[in-house]
Amino acid sequence: MFRMILSEIAGAVGGELCGDADVEITGCAPLESAGPGQIAYVEKGGVKLNADSRPSALIVGKGVETSIDRIEVENPLLAFAQAIELLHPETNPEPGIHPTAVVDDSARIGEGTSIGCLSSVGAGSEIGRNCVIHPSVTIGRNCRIGDDCVIHPRAVIINGSVLGNKVIIHSGTVIGSDGFKYVRDGGGQNLKVKHIGIVRIGDDVEIGVNCAVDRGFLEETVLEDGVKLDNLIQIGHNVRVGAGSVIAAQAGISGSTIIGENVMFGGQVGVADHVKIPDNTVVAAQSGVIASLKSSAVYAGTPAIEIPRWRRMHAALIRLPELVKKVRRLEKKERTVKWT
Amino acid sequence: MFRMILSEIAGAVGGELCGDADVEITGCAPLESAGPGQIAYVEKGGVKLNADSRPSALIVGKGVETSIDRIEVENPLLAFAQAIELLHPETNPEPGIHPTAVVDDSARIGEGTSIGCLSSVGAGSEIGRNCVIHPSVTIGRNCRIGDDCVIHPRAVIINGSVLGNKVIIHSGTVIGSDGFKYVRDGGGQNLKVKHIGIVRIGDDVEIGVNCAVDRGFLEETVLEDGVKLDNLIQIGHNVRVGAGSVIAAQAGISGSTIIGENVMFGGQVGVADHVKIPDNTVVAAQSGVIASLKSSAVYAGTPAIEIPRWRRMHAALIRLPELVKKVRRLEKKERTVKWT
Amino acid sequence: MFRMILSEIAGAVGGELCGDADVEITGCAPLESAGPGQIAYVEKGGVKLNADSRPSALIVGKGVETSIDRIEVENPLLAFAQAIELLHPETNPEPGIHPTAVVDDSARIGEGTSIGCLSSVGAGSEIGRNCVIHPSVTIGRNCRIGDDCVIHPRAVIINGSVLGNKVIIHSGTVIGSDGFKYVRDGGGQNLKVKHIGIVRIGDDVEIGVNCAVDRGFLEETVLEDGVKLDNLIQIGHNVRVGAGSVIAAQAGISGSTIIGENVMFGGQVGVADHVKIPDNTVVAAQSGVIASLKSSAVYAGTPAIEIPRWRRMHAALIRLPELVKKVRRLEKKERTVKWT
Repeated sequence: MFRMILSEIAGAVGGELCGDADVEITGCAPLESAGPGQIAYVEKGGVKLNADSRPSALIVGKGVETSIDRIEVENPLLAFAQAIELLHPETNPEPGIHPTAVVDDSARIGEGTSIGCLSSVGAGSEIGRNCVIHPSVTIGRNCRIGDDCVIHPRAVIINGSVLGNKVIIHSGTVIGSDGFKYVRDGGGQNLKVKHIGIVRIGDDVEIGVNCAVDRGFLEETVLEDGVKLDNLIQIGHNVRVGAGSVIAAQAGISGSTIIGENVMFGGQVGVADHVKIPDNTVVAAQSGVIASLKSSAVYAGTPAIEIPRWRRMHAALIRLPELVKKVRRLEKKERTVKWT
Repeated sequence: MFRMILSEIAGAVGGELCGDADVEITGCAPLESAGPGQIAYVEKGGVKLNADSRPSALIVGKGVETSIDRIEVENPLLAFAQAIELLHPETNPEPGIHPTAVVDDSARIGEGTSIGCLSSVGAGSEIGRNCVIHPSVTIGRNCRIGDDCVIHPRAVIINGSVLGNKVIIHSGTVIGSDGFKYVRDGGGQNLKVKHIGIVRIGDDVEIGVNCAVDRGFLEETVLEDGVKLDNLIQIGHNVRVGAGSVIAAQAGISGSTIIGENVMFGGQVGVADHVKIPDNTVVAAQSGVIASLKSSAVYAGTPAIEIPRWRRMHAALIRLPELVKKVRRLEKKERTVKWT
Repeated sequence: MFRMILSEIAGAVGGELCGDADVEITGCAPLESAGPGQIAYVEKGGVKLNADSRPSALIVGKGVETSIDRIEVENPLLAFAQAIELLHPETNPEPGIHPTAVVDDSARIGEGTSIGCLSSVGAGSEIGRNCVIHPSVTIGRNCRIGDDCVIHPRAVIINGSVLGNKVIIHSGTVIGSDGFKYVRDGGGQNLKVKHIGIVRIGDDVEIGVNCAVDRGFLEETVLEDGVKLDNLIQIGHNVRVGAGSVIAAQAGISGSTIIGENVMFGGQVGVADHVKIPDNTVVAAQSGVIASLKSSAVYAGTPAIEIPRWRRMHAALIRLPELVKKVRRLEKKERTVKWT
């Protein structure tokens, strides 16, 4: 078990120590159930302890009142995230290639990198330094993976894909699959159009579980620096997702759509093909974007409209049966009035 | 081929034999195409045979009229499901660890359990008795898997996950992946918040193909006893799904949402984060639940409302163009009337 | 690098050469960025070159005006797709079974077929000729796979599945998983109903990444010839998808639904169970089909209605707040009029 005293943690997270500097901390826990030796955090408001809650210390925002030993910071979650990294360090495998992994002789594996059991790396691929390639990962031919990347079990990185540094790919995700494009041949059959583009992923990108990121047709599919994708997301061919954009689970982006920077999509959002989304746009969960959005606002609904209008529309919609009755009543009255 | 006589089946499923006790049955089939040696079932109503349909016997509800040899039961599908198990027993692999599997020395594998080819089990994990771990399964470190579990090819059980007894995990599903949580650091970048919680799965839980069940942040993500998930479902971090709840394909449950017992969700349902769903609630397919539901009713739409209201609303909506015309006509008339 | 002269390409794609027959072509590229040695295509309209665009040749439709050496054809994308195949041929692995693959002694592997590293093929399975089984594919027992198929890394083909010729299965897709069917037993528990049907896939079918195609319950789940599925699609048990139908990403088809030929579904479409969809039907993205469709039209919305009606409905819906105001004004006026 890991051990730090509170003053060490305060120093590491850049916070102000209030209380006993020598409290010994062995782990992080939620406020509701933290016990002796554990540190919890309070985002805002007062400290509400459960009957079972006996944290040894807290990380709190400025001005949170409590008699518990604590570290005061500007951003409690940020400091707590740092405390988690300190108190619960990752147990990484030893660098090196597991004997059951199948690594092509022409592949180059950087210093400090581990290749887990039952993984494979194809001809011509290069993996940078200090990467963790977990068990049962499949990396194809001529891929380039930067430094400090983590590829989780059963991810598939297909031929020619390029990943930056500090990229995290979660289990079951497939990078570089063919896009969905056919052309009718003379006989009326759909002929597959071969894709010769690639996927290019920037630095600090994280992609969740069981996603699909299709390679470009002739061009590249691009996820810029800092893009974060949740689970079960579809990214079509030739899509570009701008730096810092965050997409929630089960969203789907159709081919050739260009998404700006710092965009946020809720879960199950769908975006049509060849659409442009401006920087800083927010699209609410389950919305459908079927045409380019003009300005960086908050959108909702299918087709997506600006959310204040969507709210008014929906408020009226929910009372639509009453509106129908009102109109019926007016029509009845109308028949009894003497029109001139 | 397996063989039983009708009276044996009747005894095993607890039904009443009507007809020839010695009819030999070798398998189950649909009523429309059952042939000699096969048994079919009839849920309710009359027995409608196709030209090709020559079942040797039937399992029927009380009072179904037919001259075919049969077993009468209260619940024909239940009895038929039992007959399938008898007549089409699973061919399980021999217990033991396949030579190509990579099982850490510190892992403990129960009696009667088989570990398929090209699977791996990490350090400190425990697998109970009479489990079938199919080929190419990845089990991480410190997982605990109960007795009589079946893990299908390419499922991934990540470090620390806990599974009860008789749990079935289908191919491609990932249990225990990181949740989707970031905090803005000083430089405006999204910093990953490390997850130290786990996934805890009860007894008799079945999870379909290519699902994602994220681990808790500090807490546990919990699927209680008897939960059934279909394919391609997203379960966010800290979610709790109550006992006996059933969720159809492609639904997504956002983080920290609490779902009661015996809840039913249709396909592609989305539920927002930090929402509470009461016991016995039903949510229709494609609906979006954006706030806690007060009572256990049937809901539909986005945002989800009680289905009688949704039906009235939708009936009015579909006639909205006509309503617009009516109002236009009233406005015209209004302009011609002499108001006092 | 591959090299062809323009007249060779013109001959191969059946087009008319206009310009220098001997221009040397080494690859295909998008018009916007094609450089020396590259050929691009122009679907229709004029040829718009970027500053950086210096294609050595073009494939164009009849009557497209340009001074660049070119091949004129009826269908530029079709010809270009053929040119891609010529200039960017697949690098297939050598036929044979990789030493780390686990192939049961009773499995039969056709001539010219390669089985990649860390793949497995179960007892009784037959794989045809000239197939590429990529690394880490799992094929169960008693599967039948035709000739010229490509199974991408981490696909899973479960026991008894039947695939035709020229079938492409992408990474992470699972063919033949159990359907989602339970029956309440006497104690109120959901008892799993075992599935003994299979999946049958025709010729020229392509299935994208991380899809789930459930086996039939007693019957077969069928994807007929030429069906194309995009990524992350759910196909329930007993579903039949007619020849030539094309389904976009994240759509879900519930159990026992019958889809006609040449149907097109947009992304995230959901279809209820036991529904019939006529030939040539088109359903727009995110729509929900909850009952059988009568005629082969274009549908949108949830529940899906014919798109001209949906458009009128939606145009009215978006102005609903204004309609509410109009009715309110009429009501006010009404109270001031002298009714007779």
